[in-house]
Amino acid sequence: MRFVLVHDFWHDGTAWKAVADELRHAGHHVDAPTIAGHGPDADRDVSHDDCVASIVDAIVRIDWDDVVLVGHGFGGAVIARVAGEIPERIRRLVFWNAFVPEHGNSVTDEVPPHYQELYDSLAEESGDNTVMLPWPIWREAFINDADEELARSAYEQLSPVPYRCLTDTLDLDGFLASRLPRSYLNCTEDIALPPGRWGWHPRFSARLGLCRLVQMPGSHEALFSNPGLLAQKIVEAGRD
Amino acid sequence: MRFVLVHDFWHDGTAWKAVADELRHAGHHVDAPTIAGHGPDADRDVSHDDCVASIVDAIVRIDWDDVVLVGHGFGGAVIARVAGEIPERIRRLVFWNAFVPEHGNSVTDEVPPHYQELYDSLAEESGDNTVMLPWPIWREAFINDADEELARSAYEQLSPVPYRCLTDTLDLDGFLASRLPRSYLNCTEDIALPPGRWGWHPRFSARLGLCRLVQMPGSHEALFSNPGLLAQKIVEAGRD
Amino acid sequence: MRFVLVHDFWHDGTAWKAVADELRHAGHHVDAPTIAGHGPDADRDVSHDDCVASIVDAIVRIDWDDVVLVGHGFGGAVIARVAGEIPERIRRLVFWNAFVPEHGNSVTDEVPPHYQELYDSLAEESGDNTVMLPWPIWREAFINDADEELARSAYEQLSPVPYRCLTDTLDLDGFLASRLPRSYLNCTEDIALPPGRWGWHPRFSARLGLCRLVQMPGSHEALFSNPGLLAQKIVEAGRD
Repeated sequence: MRFVLVHDFWHDGTAWKAVADELRHAGHHVDAPTIAGHGPDADRDVSHDDCVASIVDAIVRIDWDDVVLVGHGFGGAVIARVAGEIPERIRRLVFWNAFVPEHGNSVTDEVPPHYQELYDSLAEESGDNTVMLPWPIWREAFINDADEELARSAYEQLSPVPYRCLTDTLDLDGFLASRLPRSYLNCTEDIALPPGRWGWHPRFSARLGLCRLVQMPGSHEALFSNPGLLAQKIVEAGRD
Repeated sequence: MRFVLVHDFWHDGTAWKAVADELRHAGHHVDAPTIAGHGPDADRDVSHDDCVASIVDAIVRIDWDDVVLVGHGFGGAVIARVAGEIPERIRRLVFWNAFVPEHGNSVTDEVPPHYQELYDSLAEESGDNTVMLPWPIWREAFINDADEELARSAYEQLSPVPYRCLTDTLDLDGFLASRLPRSYLNCTEDIALPPGRWGWHPRFSARLGLCRLVQMPGSHEALFSNPGLLAQKIVEAGRD
Repeated sequence: MRFVLVHDFWHDGTAWKAVADELRHAGHHVDAPTIAGHGPDADRDVSHDDCVASIVDAIVRIDWDDVVLVGHGFGGAVIARVAGEIPERIRRLVFWNAFVPEHGNSVTDEVPPHYQELYDSLAEESGDNTVMLPWPIWREAFINDADEELARSAYEQLSPVPYRCLTDTLDLDGFLASRLPRSYLNCTEDIALPPGRWGWHPRFSARLGLCRLVQMPGSHEALFSNPGLLAQKIVEAGRD
C-alpha cells in the first residue's frame, strides 16, 4: 500500500520515522511530509489553507494515487481538506485520534474550554502567535504510556505550532462530498482530549458516517511508545 | 459445559463452526441450531414466535438441561424469550453483543433511525419482505477486524433475514421473571451498532440487572475473525 | 519506588500480598497497611477520620517520604485525605478504580441508588452497623474475571466494613489544595460500579484534573485475578 502520513501539531514528518520504518519493512510505500509552518526551522506565518496546500503539493510531487492518507490529531483536519482537493488520488482516509471538525468550525472550536483558554494564553505569551504545550501536561495527557526517558526524548523533538492554523475556520464541503472510504483508529488510553463529551471517540468517529473502527492500547503518542503495533493497526485501518 | 449457541440474523447455525470446534476441543458439548426462517434454504414466512419455538424445540429434542444459552446479536432477543419458556433447562444466559429488547419493543425499535430506514427500504425492495445487508456496510461495520479475503468468504455465507422477525413486538415478561444468571460478552470494536447512545454496551448490559461482564477485542463477527479467543471468552462468561 | 498500597472496603492489607510480592520482586519497596476498622479481628467502631489517621500513622511510623500512594476503591477516599494531611511525604497518588468523592460528599453519595439501598438494608440487618456484600453480587460484579474457585477463596478473605466509614461526609479541601501529581488506573472490566453515568472512569478520573490514565483488562479484584499485570500497571501509573 501507499501510505501518506500526516503528523499532529508540534510534530513534523520525522516523528513518523519508527512507524514508517515498520511499514516499509512490511513492504509498503511511505511518505511523511511536513505540514507548512511546522518543524523546528519553519516559517510560522501560515494559514490552515497553507497547511492543506503543502500536503496536496507533497502528494502531487511524488505523483502517487491510490493513497491511504493517514492523519494524526490536527492532521485529521488537514487530510479531510486534502481529500476535498484531490479525491481522485486517495483510496481511503485513516483518522488516528484525529480531529474531524464540523464544517465551519476551527480546530480550537473542537477542544474543551480549558484547552481553548490555555492555548489562547500560550499564544499571547509567545510573542509570535505560536503555541507549545508545557512538559507537565504533555507528559501526563499525551504520552502517558511511556517512561520518563522516552517521554523527554520525544518532547525534545516538538516545536511550536502557528496558532492561526488552529483558529482558522474550515471549509469541509469538499470532504463531505467526497464519500471516500474512511477509518478511525483509536488508541484507548489517548487522553489528549478528555474521555467523554469532548473525547476523540466516538465524538469524531461518529461524524464520519460509515467508518471502519480499529482500536489499540496506547496514548496519543503511540508513534513513539509503540510504533510496531501502531504500524500494524494502520495497515488494518487502511487495507481494502 | 453444555453450550447452545444461537446465531445472529443473516447467519445460520453453521456460522459457529470454528467456535464450536474450539469449545468441543476444550471438552464442552455444543449445539448450534438454526433459527426458523434463517439459512439459505429456509421458508422465510416466519414470525418471532416461530424463531423462539424453533430454539425451544432444538433444546427439547436433544433433551439437555443445565444449558449455557448463548445469543449473538438478534439471537439475544431469541434466547431471552427461550429462557421465559424453558427456564428449568437453562443454567445461564450469555448475551454476546446481543439485543436485550425492552418489553413490548421489536428489535427494530432498538436500532438507530438510520438503520431502521435502511432496513425498511431493503425489505420493501426485496419483494419478499426480507433484508440482506449490503457488502460495504457489512465489511466496515460488522467485520472491521478481518482482512478482505476473510470478510468476503464470511459474507458469502450470509442469507437474507425475514424482516417480520425484527418488527414483531416482543413479550419479555417470562424472561424478566426468570431471574436466571446472565452474562454480557462485549467485543470492544463491535460497531454494528454505533458506540454511544445506541451502542451494545452498556445500553443492553444495563438492562440485565446483576450481570457478569466479559470483554475481548474484536468486531461483531469475531466468530469468523477470532474464534479461538471468542470460545475462551464464552467459557469465561458461561462458567458457574 | 516506595509504594504504600491502601486497600478497598471488605479487604485488609493482606489482600495485596500477591501484588506486593511482584512489586518487591521488581525491586520496589512496599507497605500495605490495614485501614482502621478493617480486617477480620478489627474494632469496627471507627469513623472515616480514624481510617485516614491509621494510614497517616502507618506512613509516619515507617518514616517514608517520596511515597507513591495507591488507593483501591474505598481506598481512594482515604488516600485523598491522607494527601491533605501529609503532602510532603507523597510523590504521586494512584487511584485504582477508586472513589474520588466530591468535597462534602460521603462515599455512599457516590454510588448508584440501588447500591445505597442495598448497603442501608445490609447495615440495618447486621446488628452492628456493618456491611458485607453477598456472594452472588460480589462474584458477578466484583470478580467477574476469575473462575469460581479463585472467586470463592478470595471471598473467604473478606470481612464486614464499618458502615460509618462510608456514610461520613468527607472534607477534601486539603487534597484539592495539595496539587500532587496523580494517576488513574482503570481496569476495563470493572463493573463494581456500573459502566456509564455511575462508572469509575471517566467520572472519577475527570475530577482529578490533569491526571495520567493507565488501563488494563480486568475486574475490580484484579489484585487476585491478575496480580502480575496489576503490579506492572501500578508501576506505569506511579513512575516519575
